[in-house]
Amino acid sequence: MLIISTFVYFVKFPPAKGVHFQNYFVLLHTKYNFCAKDFSMSKNLTSRAEDYSKWYNELVVKAGLAESSGVRGCMVIKPYGYAIWERMRDILDKMFKDTGHQNAYFPIFVPKSYFEAEEKNAEGFAKECAVVTHYRLKADPNQKGKLMVDPQAKLEEELIVRPTSEAIIWNTYKTWIQSYRDLPILINQWANVVRWEMRTRLFLRTAEFLWQEGHTAHATQAEAVEEAQKMNEVYATFVEQYMGVPVVRGRKTETERFAGADDTYCIEALMQDGKALQAGTSHFLGQNFAKAFDVKYATKEGALEYVWASSWGVSTRLMGALIMSHSDDNGLVLPPLLAPIQVVIVPIYKGEEQLQAIRERISPLMQALKERNIAVKFDDDDTQKPGFKFHEYELKGIPVRLAVGQRDLENNTYEVARRDTLTKESVSGDNIITHIEQLLKDIQTNIYQKALAYRDSHITEVNSYEEFKEVLENKGGFLSAHWDGTPETEAKIKEETQATIRCIPLDQKEEAGTCIYSGKPSKGRVLFAKAY
Amino acid sequence: MLIISTFVYFVKFPPAKGVHFQNYFVLLHTKYNFCAKDFSMSKNLTSRAEDYSKWYNELVVKAGLAESSGVRGCMVIKPYGYAIWERMRDILDKMFKDTGHQNAYFPIFVPKSYFEAEEKNAEGFAKECAVVTHYRLKADPNQKGKLMVDPQAKLEEELIVRPTSEAIIWNTYKTWIQSYRDLPILINQWANVVRWEMRTRLFLRTAEFLWQEGHTAHATQAEAVEEAQKMNEVYATFVEQYMGVPVVRGRKTETERFAGADDTYCIEALMQDGKALQAGTSHFLGQNFAKAFDVKYATKEGALEYVWASSWGVSTRLMGALIMSHSDDNGLVLPPLLAPIQVVIVPIYKGEEQLQAIRERISPLMQALKERNIAVKFDDDDTQKPGFKFHEYELKGIPVRLAVGQRDLENNTYEVARRDTLTKESVSGDNIITHIEQLLKDIQTNIYQKALAYRDSHITEVNSYEEFKEVLENKGGFLSAHWDGTPETEAKIKEETQATIRCIPLDQKEEAGTCIYSGKPSKGRVLFAKAY
Repeated sequence: MLIISTFVYFVKFPPAKGVHFQNYFVLLHTKYNFCAKDFSMSKNLTSRAEDYSKWYNELVVKAGLAESSGVRGCMVIKPYGYAIWERMRDILDKMFKDTGHQNAYFPIFVPKSYFEAEEKNAEGFAKECAVVTHYRLKADPNQKGKLMVDPQAKLEEELIVRPTSEAIIWNTYKTWIQSYRDLPILINQWANVVRWEMRTRLFLRTAEFLWQEGHTAHATQAEAVEEAQKMNEVYATFVEQYMGVPVVRGRKTETERFAGADDTYCIEALMQDGKALQAGTSHFLGQNFAKAFDVKYATKEGALEYVWASSWGVSTRLMGALIMSHSDDNGLVLPPLLAPIQVVIVPIYKGEEQLQAIRERISPLMQALKERNIAVKFDDDDTQKPGFKFHEYELKGIPVRLAVGQRDLENNTYEVARRDTLTKESVSGDNIITHIEQLLKDIQTNIYQKALAYRDSHITEVNSYEEFKEVLENKGGFLSAHWDGTPETEAKIKEETQATIRCIPLDQKEEAGTCIYSGKPSKGRVLFAKAY
Repeated sequence: MLIISTFVYFVKFPPAKGVHFQNYFVLLHTKYNFCAKDFSMSKNLTSRAEDYSKWYNELVVKAGLAESSGVRGCMVIKPYGYAIWERMRDILDKMFKDTGHQNAYFPIFVPKSYFEAEEKNAEGFAKECAVVTHYRLKADPNQKGKLMVDPQAKLEEELIVRPTSEAIIWNTYKTWIQSYRDLPILINQWANVVRWEMRTRLFLRTAEFLWQEGHTAHATQAEAVEEAQKMNEVYATFVEQYMGVPVVRGRKTETERFAGADDTYCIEALMQDGKALQAGTSHFLGQNFAKAFDVKYATKEGALEYVWASSWGVSTRLMGALIMSHSDDNGLVLPPLLAPIQVVIVPIYKGEEQLQAIRERISPLMQALKERNIAVKFDDDDTQKPGFKFHEYELKGIPVRLAVGQRDLENNTYEVARRDTLTKESVSGDNIITHIEQLLKDIQTNIYQKALAYRDSHITEVNSYEEFKEVLENKGGFLSAHWDGTPETEAKIKEETQATIRCIPLDQKEEAGTCIYSGKPSKGRVLFAKAY
């Protein structure tokens, strides 16, 4: 393959005069990956049916969202992927501010002694910590041009690259909180964190990822619980209304809780392969961190009490959920509310004169769309053919594509293609603007409805362990089942089937039943699934 | 002092019934820093004349901008400081996008072998690198509840926490660039970086800081140089027009260049104590990184050539420049274009009825200001007196403060105070909106003009080394002097006086002269100063 592509390239771009053609060919060929990009555009994606996992990996790279880096488990978020993440960040940021939160920034390093302070939290993250032990490199006396860690520059206390920031933040809150007048503290941070995962996948599980983490301090338990619930609902609203991904709101079992939390709320989404994906979590931390860092406040009555806490976060993992929820075998399908380009216009022309006529025709449309805050791009790149462009914009998930050719000029029409349904229609120039506005709304609604229908048809009530295993194996999705409430049963089911309890739904119905595994009594159903 | 403040607090918030008063007192008192905040508001800042450095440190903390953390050299950026940084970031981000750049994100870790690849860059940063050597902690068998680095989890290759990202980014660009069609690459990243500085100061020099770093790749030398110049000018525009801080545009000497650059452009500002501050730099990197990472592209003619590069960055250091340029002994002075709150309204009232009347009076004004995108806050907190609030908003640098009392209600007036001049006037309600709009513009202009006048009166032409040392000692500021162009002379002057060459101004005049130190010939003056 590489030989062929090098040859194709060679023919297209022959060596300059004076360049020895054999050297040139070898240079081209030895340059690893040389023609990978040229090939990627013309080659189709692996289909979901063929290999869902491979489809995902290819899609992320080919659509220009992200790629692996030279650093184990760390990804490069490419410009197109980052532009989507930026939109998500900006919308979430506004939602946080509208609910009374402020942003701040805390150090990336957590001294080991702080990290140890909250025992469960420390235990939960110790196994996947990047640890800074030295603060200097020096020339390696044995290898010219190489560097080595300077043994003279060993830190007295090791620093953990934050896997989450409760420890460093609560050590700070200690000095900020004296009396009830200092509460609540409602702070959010946008940051990078590092968890040394062994098996990584772009966006879904990476050693370094970007996220936001809210950390709040309250005078009462009720307020802290309310905050955790409120932020879980903010996440649910964002994921459903903007990402177009329906979620189940629930609480985690004790086993699945955040390390250091008394209660974890979560939103769980379902991907097209029937596996669940935890899209966001919000924790009621009780007084665990207040006790670990001795954070007390003087009440109005003059008593001293420990402070109550919550924390909550979503990460670049949401990109994985977004990609897997809507995309198809042709590529990405983006919800209009998050698409960096919502409408693309492709001219179909022969010669500069026709192109100029098309430019004049679409100029007022471009203007009108921009005034309505619709992100529009006119692609007059003359090095690529329209067919290539169509293919590329399908791959990149642009919601609406307009094509304009000679016939459209004559008839005052546009060929309008929508990405979600892959359908086309001819639309009159007279009502193209309202048509596009409506279409963007329709697409946003449609992809949500489609994902919802899929999700709802993949919540199966099962009443025996046999049925559980059979549905899990053949259909996937969420299994709504009775469970006896013990971590032991939960662990055994996980061990035997890989399915975990995704959540105890917030709208769980009281219903007497027997545990599918142990036969012991249960008061209501919980949702199991295999998960990312 | 702590005893007194604890006692004041104790009287104000006596212990609840049943709480032993002595225990309560001891608890209050032993809680370090307990009343620091209460005191900080009532105690004045150290004046600039008394101790400029102390004034700065106090101001940063008391105005709620940032504070030291428990991690050596790392700061906590507090909500008010972060809100200002956010505004700076958003404006810069738009300027980058308007000049054709896209954002992306690259890993925080740089494998040692990448780091070594560009020799000068590696040499320049090796001495201040945080190095990750292990990826796991484990329970310490000798100390219950303590963790230790797991010796089994030693990395095969050490990872450097990025001090700057050229190495990791050029290792990525290698796979992105094959032909001239892939160029230019115009990418920016917003990120945290770590440089293990030994003497740190909030915002000015911290071990971890936030910044943006642009990294571009070009087909020709001319394009890369043009990019570096263009971005230096973008920085100059931002710092002057938004921050209200005049800058000298220039180039660095070889000694002061970025490690790995062929040329460094910079903008230099002057602080109120006569010391210079480098506010931004933009580097022409030549083909240094392309050669280090073997990044070649096929030209249109089919030859293979190394790629040309630029990189450019500004950081949270700009916060230091902003604070030190305009602020006074009463606190921060913010340019309206960066102030998170531009207008604050303080009611002066007795009883709920009067407050309600004031609320009704200002409600349409608040509405009108918000419609004009003016950030306004109405402070009806009834736990603080107006005098306290005036003091606080002065400390926080809110550009315009309105007070409304009974007399203002009767006369349809507002008392309008401007922060930059500390003057007050009574303004009729009939033209309060246009008055405020004009005032914000005037303040923005005025603080720039004031800083410019100070800066211009502190550029002194000196023609002998005696004069140089005399002006440096007694007046400070920029010294415009002839220099023989050698690193040796530059080093000796630095050693003897602590002054460095801040830049060779872009508008340097050709002027024959003799070096103030060596007496050798010089073709033009350069700017020396002591610097942050």
